[in-house]
Amino acid sequence: MKEKIIIVGAGLCGTLLAIRMAQRGFDVKVYERRSDMRKGMEDAGRSINLALSSRGLKALDMAGIKEAILEECIPMRGRMIHPLGVDSFFSAYSGRKEDYINSVSRPGLNIALLDEADRFENIEVVFDAKVTAVDLKEASITYQTTNGTQQDQGSVVIGTDGAGSVVRRSMMAQTTRLLFNYSQDFLRHGYKELSILPGKDTPWKIEKEALHIWPRGNFMIIALPNLDGSFTLTMFHPFDSEIGFNALDTKEKVKAFFEAYYPTLLPYIPHYQEEYFENPVGTLGTIKCYPWQAYGKTLIMGDASHAIVPFYGQGMNSSLEDVRIFDETMEELGYDWEKVFTAFQDKRRHNANAIADLAIDNFYEMRDHVDDLNFKRKRMIEMQLEQEYPDYYSKYSLVTFKPELSYEEAMNLGRRQDKLLLELCSRDDFDSIPLNEYKKRLSALSV
Amino acid sequence: MKEKIIIVGAGLCGTLLAIRMAQRGFDVKVYERRSDMRKGMEDAGRSINLALSSRGLKALDMAGIKEAILEECIPMRGRMIHPLGVDSFFSAYSGRKEDYINSVSRPGLNIALLDEADRFENIEVVFDAKVTAVDLKEASITYQTTNGTQQDQGSVVIGTDGAGSVVRRSMMAQTTRLLFNYSQDFLRHGYKELSILPGKDTPWKIEKEALHIWPRGNFMIIALPNLDGSFTLTMFHPFDSEIGFNALDTKEKVKAFFEAYYPTLLPYIPHYQEEYFENPVGTLGTIKCYPWQAYGKTLIMGDASHAIVPFYGQGMNSSLEDVRIFDETMEELGYDWEKVFTAFQDKRRHNANAIADLAIDNFYEMRDHVDDLNFKRKRMIEMQLEQEYPDYYSKYSLVTFKPELSYEEAMNLGRRQDKLLLELCSRDDFDSIPLNEYKKRLSALSV
Repeated sequence: MKEKIIIVGAGLCGTLLAIRMAQRGFDVKVYERRSDMRKGMEDAGRSINLALSSRGLKALDMAGIKEAILEECIPMRGRMIHPLGVDSFFSAYSGRKEDYINSVSRPGLNIALLDEADRFENIEVVFDAKVTAVDLKEASITYQTTNGTQQDQGSVVIGTDGAGSVVRRSMMAQTTRLLFNYSQDFLRHGYKELSILPGKDTPWKIEKEALHIWPRGNFMIIALPNLDGSFTLTMFHPFDSEIGFNALDTKEKVKAFFEAYYPTLLPYIPHYQEEYFENPVGTLGTIKCYPWQAYGKTLIMGDASHAIVPFYGQGMNSSLEDVRIFDETMEELGYDWEKVFTAFQDKRRHNANAIADLAIDNFYEMRDHVDDLNFKRKRMIEMQLEQEYPDYYSKYSLVTFKPELSYEEAMNLGRRQDKLLLELCSRDDFDSIPLNEYKKRLSALSV
Repeated sequence: MKEKIIIVGAGLCGTLLAIRMAQRGFDVKVYERRSDMRKGMEDAGRSINLALSSRGLKALDMAGIKEAILEECIPMRGRMIHPLGVDSFFSAYSGRKEDYINSVSRPGLNIALLDEADRFENIEVVFDAKVTAVDLKEASITYQTTNGTQQDQGSVVIGTDGAGSVVRRSMMAQTTRLLFNYSQDFLRHGYKELSILPGKDTPWKIEKEALHIWPRGNFMIIALPNLDGSFTLTMFHPFDSEIGFNALDTKEKVKAFFEAYYPTLLPYIPHYQEEYFENPVGTLGTIKCYPWQAYGKTLIMGDASHAIVPFYGQGMNSSLEDVRIFDETMEELGYDWEKVFTAFQDKRRHNANAIADLAIDNFYEMRDHVDDLNFKRKRMIEMQLEQEYPDYYSKYSLVTFKPELSYEEAMNLGRRQDKLLLELCSRDDFDSIPLNEYKKRLSALSV
């Protein structure tokens, strides 16, 4: 008899996991709280496009669906920076042309994964099924549908039900039994989505193949392109300050604020006032926990076990990479679930912590150092190095374009590189240091 | 009309707070989940004595009950260390005779506080009342008694309901609204209580005025004296290891373990096998959160907002000190609750974090460094300095015997002192450094 795998949550991580487990021959049952998004959408005003990069792509490739997904992506080759009162400029993500990230629609990607899952006879996705309880030891779940409350049991339950995970909550309810460590940490900033609509003659009204940033010190707006010519804007903004979300509560105040801080953006967003008041404010939090598994019967992965802030563009990528690493662990250890779950969590947790910390660092770096002379010099040297030396990767590139390294390895090496480069960039004789001197010193660092 | 203060939890912190608020003229209503402990005790095998020191005493003094409480205490002037295979030795807590800590019975102290509270007409304590929900904004609570579900509303609600706080849980349920940060962090060690019964001729079978420690590297047993001649023993012990709690699951294994590791203790605990299997294993966790207040209507304090591990003997003391600092804040700002709650939490949280971190540090220090040569030298120098110089306080003494300094100040100064002393104690010419040289250098450090 084939073992039955229950997956809670048919988001990006859960659906990819379902496909991979089906490819391995398991019977897979996926329970999803929402309706089938292919029959109409909820979720207006929530983050609807994301940056898909090498780690995510490598995980999709494992399931044989990378090429299909790439067709729905728009390459973003760098950041288009729009400072206040100064000309905009472009800053590539890497000195190598082949290193870029991809703007992809979250529902688009999810639908592509669900369509792929439909091709497997051994996957069943149950929509509109709200899991209310998990018996961690018995690998059984209780769920509600319009037909009432029902139960199901598998060999194991894997929770991929996001930052508000019900499976994780069941672990939390056994806090002292599992010695369950947990933290949730919110930034004092939130986010709100706005949009640039497609143009009539030229669909993309601003540079298409870029991630746009309007940095304003303590706050900013970013924009990612969509296939239909629109851009999704995200306003990262403090809750409490004289011009924070909580203070911008009338049309007059919002207007005055946008005119003062985003004057060059205004022509592209004529309807910003309606969007500002219609769209919700989301929070930005980091969730860490341990253990991720209980009794060798229940496991959480993706945002359920490690939710991070979006400032490194790695939330989705790290969740998809979880599936690849989980697969690698099964390949290594077979289907002894207690062994696999334990090995997976102990291999993966440090990497989840690393990308969580990198993402927080980037929030403060973008906020506090984007105009710093030494940081600008460093970025310039990094570009030159990547153009000149194929084996050199900046910290950003290690994290984003080098999935052969774990997040933790990328973080450790990247931080050592940063320290060295910042030292050199702050020297009085900066102008006279030759490029190969940087390379020589950087090559002495190791993972 | 007098304002009504609702307090959830009639433990040490809640009862002292009730007394203080009544002294200030408020109507105070306290809801306590448990039965009145004066009518019989639950709680066998849970931590029943504690170390009361200067910070706790100063808070009790504010309410005028310090002297009465001290009569129920046994002074502990230092640690009696019982290494394995070597003679026991005594190590004073301070070079000053007047600096000692006090063993006190938790229920004894709680009863004394409840008796004191009974003297106030404007305090009502409702026992057997389980608070199930708190409306943070309305300062109202829902509670269950044998008479069914009822509600009450006050000017404010203050939660002093311990590490498992229901009031905190209500804040957690509004995570994104309050941007409620939270962490729970468990050690991989737990604890279990055992006891030494009173002797017939000499009640205290081992040194009465000491906190006894049987250190064994990765684990230990400690003992505190009780008024009746008994000692409460606490076994701090890993869950998972070859000799961890989870492995010691038969009488044979427990016997072999105690005979190997605690041979000199065995004559005093003839009934240890029964206690080992009857008493539960407790967990050791640190809880931090922020904010502590919501809407200027609800506040948490004591273990509800900052639960810590017991290795600095400050859990109860910090909770009682909360009440003193809260009182100080009212004195300063009056009864504008939003102002008072906000000022209190922002003043107190860093101190709560400091003692939490100090307690964790001490766990590792007791475990890993107790036999370290430099640490022993440092302890010796600290004693000599405290004997010689009235104004010198070691880190331990700053935290324990100097409540004029906040925990954070004590931690910062104490850590700088430790660093300096450890440097000097590791020098080759250690033997030739005169005491006044230490003092001179230490005096250059400031809070």
